Amino acid sequence: MKRILQEIDPFRLIQTGIDHSENRPAESIMSLGNGYMGARGNYEEDYTGDTLKGLYIAGVWMPDKTRVGWWKNGYPRYYGKVINAPDFLMFHLYVNGRRVDLAHTPIQSFRRVVDMHAGVMEREMVLCTERGRLKIASTRFFSADVKQIACMTYAVTALDDIGAVAVETGLDADVKNTDANYGEQFWELRALEQGERLYLESETIENPFGVPRFTVGFTARIQCAGDRVRRACTQGERCVFHRFEADLGAGDSFRLEKLVSVVTTRDIPHEGLAAAGDGLLAQAEGDGMDVLRQRHEAAWARRWRLCDVTIDGDTAAQQGIRFNLFQLWSTYDGSDERLNIGPKGFTGEKYGGAAYYDTEGYCFPMYLATSAPDTARKLLKFRYNTLEQAKENAAKIGMAGALYPMVTFNGEECHNEWEITFEELHRNAAMVYAIYCYTEYTGDESYIRDYGIHVMVEIARFWACRASYQPDKDCYMLLGVTGPNEYDNNVNNDFLTNYMAKWCIEYALDWVQKLSYPLDGEEARKMREVADKMYLNYDPETMLFSQQDGFMDKDIYPAADIPEEELPLCKHWSWDRILRSCFIKQADVILTFYYFPGRFTLEQKQANFQFYEPLTVHESSLSPSMYSTVASACGFEGDAYRLYQRAARLDLDNFNADTEDGLHITSMAGSWIALMHGFAGMSYQGGRLSFAPRCPEKWGQVKMRLYYRGRLLEVRFTADEFSCDLLEGEALEIEVNGTPYLVQGRCRQTLR
Amino acid sequence: MKRILQEIDPFRLIQTGIDHSENRPAESIMSLGNGYMGARGNYEEDYTGDTLKGLYIAGVWMPDKTRVGWWKNGYPRYYGKVINAPDFLMFHLYVNGRRVDLAHTPIQSFRRVVDMHAGVMEREMVLCTERGRLKIASTRFFSADVKQIACMTYAVTALDDIGAVAVETGLDADVKNTDANYGEQFWELRALEQGERLYLESETIENPFGVPRFTVGFTARIQCAGDRVRRACTQGERCVFHRFEADLGAGDSFRLEKLVSVVTTRDIPHEGLAAAGDGLLAQAEGDGMDVLRQRHEAAWARRWRLCDVTIDGDTAAQQGIRFNLFQLWSTYDGSDERLNIGPKGFTGEKYGGAAYYDTEGYCFPMYLATSAPDTARKLLKFRYNTLEQAKENAAKIGMAGALYPMVTFNGEECHNEWEITFEELHRNAAMVYAIYCYTEYTGDESYIRDYGIHVMVEIARFWACRASYQPDKDCYMLLGVTGPNEYDNNVNNDFLTNYMAKWCIEYALDWVQKLSYPLDGEEARKMREVADKMYLNYDPETMLFSQQDGFMDKDIYPAADIPEEELPLCKHWSWDRILRSCFIKQADVILTFYYFPGRFTLEQKQANFQFYEPLTVHESSLSPSMYSTVASACGFEGDAYRLYQRAARLDLDNFNADTEDGLHITSMAGSWIALMHGFAGMSYQGGRLSFAPRCPEKWGQVKMRLYYRGRLLEVRFTADEFSCDLLEGEALEIEVNGTPYLVQGRCRQTLR
Repeated sequence: MKRILQEIDPFRLIQTGIDHSENRPAESIMSLGNGYMGARGNYEEDYTGDTLKGLYIAGVWMPDKTRVGWWKNGYPRYYGKVINAPDFLMFHLYVNGRRVDLAHTPIQSFRRVVDMHAGVMEREMVLCTERGRLKIASTRFFSADVKQIACMTYAVTALDDIGAVAVETGLDADVKNTDANYGEQFWELRALEQGERLYLESETIENPFGVPRFTVGFTARIQCAGDRVRRACTQGERCVFHRFEADLGAGDSFRLEKLVSVVTTRDIPHEGLAAAGDGLLAQAEGDGMDVLRQRHEAAWARRWRLCDVTIDGDTAAQQGIRFNLFQLWSTYDGSDERLNIGPKGFTGEKYGGAAYYDTEGYCFPMYLATSAPDTARKLLKFRYNTLEQAKENAAKIGMAGALYPMVTFNGEECHNEWEITFEELHRNAAMVYAIYCYTEYTGDESYIRDYGIHVMVEIARFWACRASYQPDKDCYMLLGVTGPNEYDNNVNNDFLTNYMAKWCIEYALDWVQKLSYPLDGEEARKMREVADKMYLNYDPETMLFSQQDGFMDKDIYPAADIPEEELPLCKHWSWDRILRSCFIKQADVILTFYYFPGRFTLEQKQANFQFYEPLTVHESSLSPSMYSTVASACGFEGDAYRLYQRAARLDLDNFNADTEDGLHITSMAGSWIALMHGFAGMSYQGGRLSFAPRCPEKWGQVKMRLYYRGRLLEVRFTADEFSCDLLEGEALEIEVNGTPYLVQGRCRQTLR
Repeated sequence: MKRILQEIDPFRLIQTGIDHSENRPAESIMSLGNGYMGARGNYEEDYTGDTLKGLYIAGVWMPDKTRVGWWKNGYPRYYGKVINAPDFLMFHLYVNGRRVDLAHTPIQSFRRVVDMHAGVMEREMVLCTERGRLKIASTRFFSADVKQIACMTYAVTALDDIGAVAVETGLDADVKNTDANYGEQFWELRALEQGERLYLESETIENPFGVPRFTVGFTARIQCAGDRVRRACTQGERCVFHRFEADLGAGDSFRLEKLVSVVTTRDIPHEGLAAAGDGLLAQAEGDGMDVLRQRHEAAWARRWRLCDVTIDGDTAAQQGIRFNLFQLWSTYDGSDERLNIGPKGFTGEKYGGAAYYDTEGYCFPMYLATSAPDTARKLLKFRYNTLEQAKENAAKIGMAGALYPMVTFNGEECHNEWEITFEELHRNAAMVYAIYCYTEYTGDESYIRDYGIHVMVEIARFWACRASYQPDKDCYMLLGVTGPNEYDNNVNNDFLTNYMAKWCIEYALDWVQKLSYPLDGEEARKMREVADKMYLNYDPETMLFSQQDGFMDKDIYPAADIPEEELPLCKHWSWDRILRSCFIKQADVILTFYYFPGRFTLEQKQANFQFYEPLTVHESSLSPSMYSTVASACGFEGDAYRLYQRAARLDLDNFNADTEDGLHITSMAGSWIALMHGFAGMSYQGGRLSFAPRCPEKWGQVKMRLYYRGRLLEVRFTADEFSCDLLEGEALEIEVNGTPYLVQGRCRQTLR
């Protein structure tokens, strides 16, 4: 655990200096995005230290052709890669004709702040150049109001008599991915225009997979305020810049305002690209930087009104949950049904694809509960719209029905490890689980009726086909799977997978009946049989569910006995050693208890938590939040608190030593789950909203909001008291620890 | 099963036409090599049809940097790639100024023959060019006498009045691997010289792994016999040629003789390369083509004298075994201790590395029995010399002792699939098994004493460390392994692996005692305990050994029920489907019976053969030979015969539909095993050579030779009679079906 930023603040990210050894993690943390585009917190100036350049446009990607060793039949054809877009954020700074490199320039003061409430980055620093001190003040935001617009300011003030200072900024397509094999460049330049307005158009390179290419048009205008500043246009092979140059005596300054519009052929036909970008930019210029910023902040304020969480008495926990919410809404806000929640959002290039089961398994509840149902519905529609590809994906592995991809941009599987893509099947159940959550939470059955039922039946069909019958034990088994615990592969009868497969079939058959959905009787009978006879490995004596067949044969000892220097295991142990060990990457059996809190006894939850938690190394960012949630249900307050802290500040404190690659966006939603479903004990199954709060002793009051069936509710709880306020909408009956209340104004329960 | 060559001949490979749809498999089959270098049977002329260019130099390779998706800690740093060397075999043919492309030129007659006894390829064909008929006669061989020398002749005769005919031949470094990611070229040109003698020197490109680069010097001289042939030198950026041109009327001809020397920095310091190549070439020129060929054929004749096998009454079986022996000796002849037996030899670029456990598990017995012990000893020394790397390899996965690589050139693991490199551990036992075979067969204990014991102890140490104790069952288990059956991965307690691990420890401890090898008492006790308590999954009722834990939970049905169009599974089923199926790629439990014929009862062998053989799809070339061998031991003559045919003609008849990628060199030795250990029932454990012959009814006499402890023996057997002749050396006591004989001249036993 290492704190990356130097200060902790409830609503801001504050960096007070450049720690060259932690620069990449800091860049990750200072990332900004508006759902349409976003960037890592790279400095405006050149920086030759450890850096990962990252600027990304949602839904723009490349199929990577790289293959290794021994390809297997049925492998996805390509790896879908998040690609670095042409750069428009840099301001190359020159003093006395030499380019300033922040990695080698003494810095007198540095303060960079991301105001998460406003969604704006501001930085002020004083550099000690060879000619004297230079103050730089800059801001950056991606408009949450007009998504295609990025806004920057960059002001230079000489504190000493410096002389020639120049700033070069514009559009630059000379970018590569760090993970590009053979240093491939993913962009072909299509147009480069200079003048008052700069224009760069680039298209993703050809690919042999029939994946559509994307063309992006970037239009930039830079305004300069300052005396005697010379402006010139410079152009390289793949870039175009304006260069601003002035001789600055002590106290002299100039200030740049840069607006960029970014439009793509995802939305606009190729021939209209330049005009569309121009139009948007002209509009933005007309509004002016102040108005743009106002509207941007107002858009963020509207979000915070519904989703904000306060935790009194623990600034670290407070900052953690706000950071997570900020990054989630920066990544996805439900405005484009074709998009999804990339696991690194706009903060890194690691992991391909933009849609994982994380969306349904982790992110869905937060979007469902803290915004209008339309957002959650769009996430469901993403899957419905790719049902055909999911059916093809199942067919590719010889199965009936639908298998949703493990990783995708467009519905086609685009990751290439068999142990994940072909075997990590529980993701298929998460698709159904999200439909179930939506329906139970909103009470709106129209989604299932119009769309969901098709998805549900195809997924049930897949499970029934994938299960194999074991005559000696008279049961159905799921052989050769990988559970959520990715620290084992190709196991038989992963508990969570079997349990959810059974549930998926049952849930689908319930709705088939309710909706009189046409399903062949023989097929329905077979499905029912598979569900009824699904093998579940349970030992009534110990009350333990075996994570998989043979798990109890492992050499079992607690993770606490692993020498400190061997952690994280994924960076120190070879893969086979991890696989055969008893150590669990992330919640597996325990995840089942989160998904289905009402189907297991308290004693079962406790026994399994006490058995599995000590074996869990939480090396997936998805793990601690689930364990925290279930710990709350078990009444294990200490564990719940400890694991929440880890979940909430996973990246801020770089728990898994990989924040440098980008943030763990999707898992951030887990901390909201741990608060709402864990500490507040919220559940809504069966059409009644209920709470079973258990606030950690160390905290003061926790305050959260819920948008539930047209009402805006605010719940507050401490270790001693729970209350619920109705802020909008009609009176509502809720339950707190089993006692019903009618919430009109406020209801309140004393907890001890 | 598809016969690739049009004719079957006992000692020759005969191709009587170009079948464009089967050209690549035919190229594989017509490959030549001399242990030092070799090439696929590519045509001399250009061919734009389906072709895989391949010319390789033993021990010259490249570490490939390509990585995919999610790298895991402990993965090998690179994939060791067999690379295509600069070409010196091509003769570009021009008629009337246009390059002849065999893929689009009508061919009146075509006959290409590889005489396996002589080790020479000869081809005669008549082309129908736009100007009339042209006869081409060519020969090719890689000298088995002076390994650095390649010899070619190329004669052109006009059958009609053709006019301008030209032939261009020389040295060409413009070559790529087909499997190169991003079309990488692996060679940097270092020198290119023209004149009477052509010289090309190229070096493998830089790599970031500290793997030594190789420089190769090619020197060529071409002599021309013919009237009015104009010779010119032409040079490209990466190639240099001599061009021979003449106007040919009907009956006119010219003939080229080309000699090439190939020297590398593996043997000669860089600065001496050109001179060394020159010297060798001058020597060869002095000898002349006829003498070179004579000596080459004599070298082959010496080999055949010891290793030849005849099978009367079955030309297909006869050709099969000779083809296999021919290719094995072309790949490896024991003259260089740093080399090993590449799985594709000089016939393709698929699979990295040059040393697999195939060497010890499959090839070793043939080299041991059909040549002086020095050859087999060199193979053992290869492993002894890389013991340090094997210890590093074990350390990389957190283990004590030594783990020999799955794939290597130089001792370092160079293949990058965890399920193979980290988990397919049985290979480690094969290293010890070869030492055991050598010692038992030769009676020479000096290898163990001087070298082998170190290898054996380190391997025993590895097994003892890798096994984990299971307290409930009071036994040791090997979790997370891949058995020889690579159609399952990450299984617990693969039977063969557990059995061999146990045996390895016992064998090592025996020798530790015999040699009073210094081994810590506590460590020895722990090793002994692991061996004693090694878990072996056996059901006394059915007499079945379970291939792995959970195998019996699979959906079990015979491979015969798989629809024809879904075979081979590896090309039609996705990997996960293969993994969870009951279908077995290659001998696993059954392999144990081959390794340890005396440790299982006939009934056990029969029961397991009858259970596992129907589940086996033999999609590894290593499979049918072992099943055949064990079938002989079981008395299942029909199976033994059927599986032998598949093993012996695996590539000739393209059983696994992948001969196009190259030949399955190492598995070719399996057919010798099936003959000698299967049909002849030869064994030598305990210091006595014994036979239990069971000749297939369909065959006449089978005749094989054995070089055993200074004697040359010839065994002959039919279904009715067995005989053994002593051709060289002192009298020897052998056993035939339990009856002892003293072989002085001939001993004979009637079998029925």
